[in-house]
Amino acid sequence: MADVVLVLNAGSSSVKFCAFDESSESGRALLHGQVEGLNTTPRLTATDDTGHVTTKEWSGGKEIGHEAAIAAIGEFLIEHRGGHKLVAVGHRVVHGGQQFDAPVLVTPTVITQLETLIPLAPLHQPHNLKAIEIVARRRPDVAQVACFDTAFHRRQPEVAQAYALPPDITSRGVRRYGFHGLSYEYIASVLPQFDAHAASGRTVVAHLGNGASMCAMVDGQSVASTMGFTAVEGLPMGTRCGSLDPGILLYLIDALKMDARSIEDLIYRRSGLLGVSGVSSDMRELLASADSHAGFAVELYTYRIARELGSLAGAMGGIDALIFTAGIGEHASPIRERVMQLSAWLGFELDDTANASGGPRISRPSSAASAWVIPTNEELMIARHTRAVAARS
Amino acid sequence: MADVVLVLNAGSSSVKFCAFDESSESGRALLHGQVEGLNTTPRLTATDDTGHVTTKEWSGGKEIGHEAAIAAIGEFLIEHRGGHKLVAVGHRVVHGGQQFDAPVLVTPTVITQLETLIPLAPLHQPHNLKAIEIVARRRPDVAQVACFDTAFHRRQPEVAQAYALPPDITSRGVRRYGFHGLSYEYIASVLPQFDAHAASGRTVVAHLGNGASMCAMVDGQSVASTMGFTAVEGLPMGTRCGSLDPGILLYLIDALKMDARSIEDLIYRRSGLLGVSGVSSDMRELLASADSHAGFAVELYTYRIARELGSLAGAMGGIDALIFTAGIGEHASPIRERVMQLSAWLGFELDDTANASGGPRISRPSSAASAWVIPTNEELMIARHTRAVAARS
Repeated sequence: MADVVLVLNAGSSSVKFCAFDESSESGRALLHGQVEGLNTTPRLTATDDTGHVTTKEWSGGKEIGHEAAIAAIGEFLIEHRGGHKLVAVGHRVVHGGQQFDAPVLVTPTVITQLETLIPLAPLHQPHNLKAIEIVARRRPDVAQVACFDTAFHRRQPEVAQAYALPPDITSRGVRRYGFHGLSYEYIASVLPQFDAHAASGRTVVAHLGNGASMCAMVDGQSVASTMGFTAVEGLPMGTRCGSLDPGILLYLIDALKMDARSIEDLIYRRSGLLGVSGVSSDMRELLASADSHAGFAVELYTYRIARELGSLAGAMGGIDALIFTAGIGEHASPIRERVMQLSAWLGFELDDTANASGGPRISRPSSAASAWVIPTNEELMIARHTRAVAARS
Repeated sequence: MADVVLVLNAGSSSVKFCAFDESSESGRALLHGQVEGLNTTPRLTATDDTGHVTTKEWSGGKEIGHEAAIAAIGEFLIEHRGGHKLVAVGHRVVHGGQQFDAPVLVTPTVITQLETLIPLAPLHQPHNLKAIEIVARRRPDVAQVACFDTAFHRRQPEVAQAYALPPDITSRGVRRYGFHGLSYEYIASVLPQFDAHAASGRTVVAHLGNGASMCAMVDGQSVASTMGFTAVEGLPMGTRCGSLDPGILLYLIDALKMDARSIEDLIYRRSGLLGVSGVSSDMRELLASADSHAGFAVELYTYRIARELGSLAGAMGGIDALIFTAGIGEHASPIRERVMQLSAWLGFELDDTANASGGPRISRPSSAASAWVIPTNEELMIARHTRAVAARS
């Protein structure tokens, strides 16, 4: 049995994992799964490379926390991949700040640096670091690599990263970081296989998942993105509002007497598709719904994508290709169709048949700009980085 | 001497005025000026139609307030336009909410309605209403007309006006209002004289003054704008930040312990060109400065205009024309040049000579999309509305 690289993505209530054969370039995971409901009803679900699903539940609905979740993942790997050698653990870390523009081997110094970034991502960074700390304690012999959602965007032009704020604020790190960088980097890595012109040209990738953002890439490098200082800016998402006039927050404080926590709850958990539709945060349910508010949520979503597409084309001086990825991008053909209709002025002509069957190319041969559906694979991107960084160390 | 329409624009520290011959269609003001420094060192400055400038100062640097300022304007008009008959007063009112999509004759009911909008524009609406109240008390015989900065945008498609927020927030009027509507409406009214194709086509007007916004118009009707719920969203301005990730405000509250008033001071008065450059909020000074921060502020400003231009083209499905107006738009040829360079992908070719001399047409004959410099005249737009509404009443 080959050596294994384990990828961990630790959130507030779940730990996702994915185990890759260290030597394989195929990108196929040996095992993937998650422990969810850490603070409510914990449950481990894992799928092996034959598609067999295993579950484990904890009795009595007790809270188990990250430590027990990661222990359970380790035990599960030993049971189901006995004889493997764990050679490295790669972590998805939401924030690398200004300093990290590439994945990094975890050291005590790195952990200290990453802790200083907690105020920039208080809802995510602590959980990412907790997983690193737990693995370091349990398996001090194994190399750990931190892979950042922000790193891919760090070489954007300064104008793309700046807010028009004074230096007493910007010097504290208030700038546009962009997120979903591991997804964009993965798409950039496979794009030459689909469209050499797009790979070396001006391409927008629309990562449309429960979180959603778009990234403008020139020659495979990020030059602008819709998410900014946090993962709430830009497009409306499942439950996040996307861009808001900052004056709205002053109104919420002054006129509605809301505090920071209730505003946070509003803009992260009660807005977006869920808030507008009143029906669901799930695009599948909205597309299947006859409710007019659900229809309006879908219309607003696609309109905002089309607006951001124009803005990102403005950052690149034109556009050669558009890539749809992540849950909605890969599976919701009506969303792709509507975005393409709204963006016909940019040279996009939809191939209806290809769109209905999921691509990969969904633009017609005559289309001046090409459009594609390409599944993302952030876990594989982390595994690749982890192998490479661990090998160098 | 002909009847006169007086236009008032009352702010927190100044009252601007402009007197028009009621019967004239020329648009030339008989007199225009302002009382500024209401709360510090008041001073009235007025210019008549021959260009003669008159000033009045108050002794002892005392605060005079809006009442004395408006009284002084009235006395000044009687002295300098003796024998005139004041037939109507038109007011610039920042906020007409959702209900007012056109100018309206002021009645007690209208005043009550406009007072309910104070929470939506707490920095401006109270001063606008105070001027109306003072004139009503001093000259109850004269018709007053409220002209709104928001009205021109009220027929935008619903997707252009909506934020992705839930109904408990949006039902309170949290939506995109857009501002500078009187300026855009004026440009729309004169555009056919310059470019019939642009007037009936897809045109973006960039109102670049100390406040700055952009409006997408199709066939002379607003379909989208960069300012939203308040006049702080969108482009960076003299001292306003423009668009910000809403997560930044949570960070300012949580990590920097700022309250609503210090955030308001930051985003309205310490940001934008002034905050980024550390030099000045005045574009003329920035363009003349050798300071690298001044240069970066200019670069960020033009970049953001180019990004918004792409976004607004996305709202219209393409673009036929771009109009520059207001102080920076009318006078800063290097800003126009840079925006046109960044927007060449949209079909704009700059005519350097015409741009240097201020237009009106600054695109080459071969340019697929046309570009123009057209001076705005919000006061004349208010006077026209005031005449029309007063005549109907």
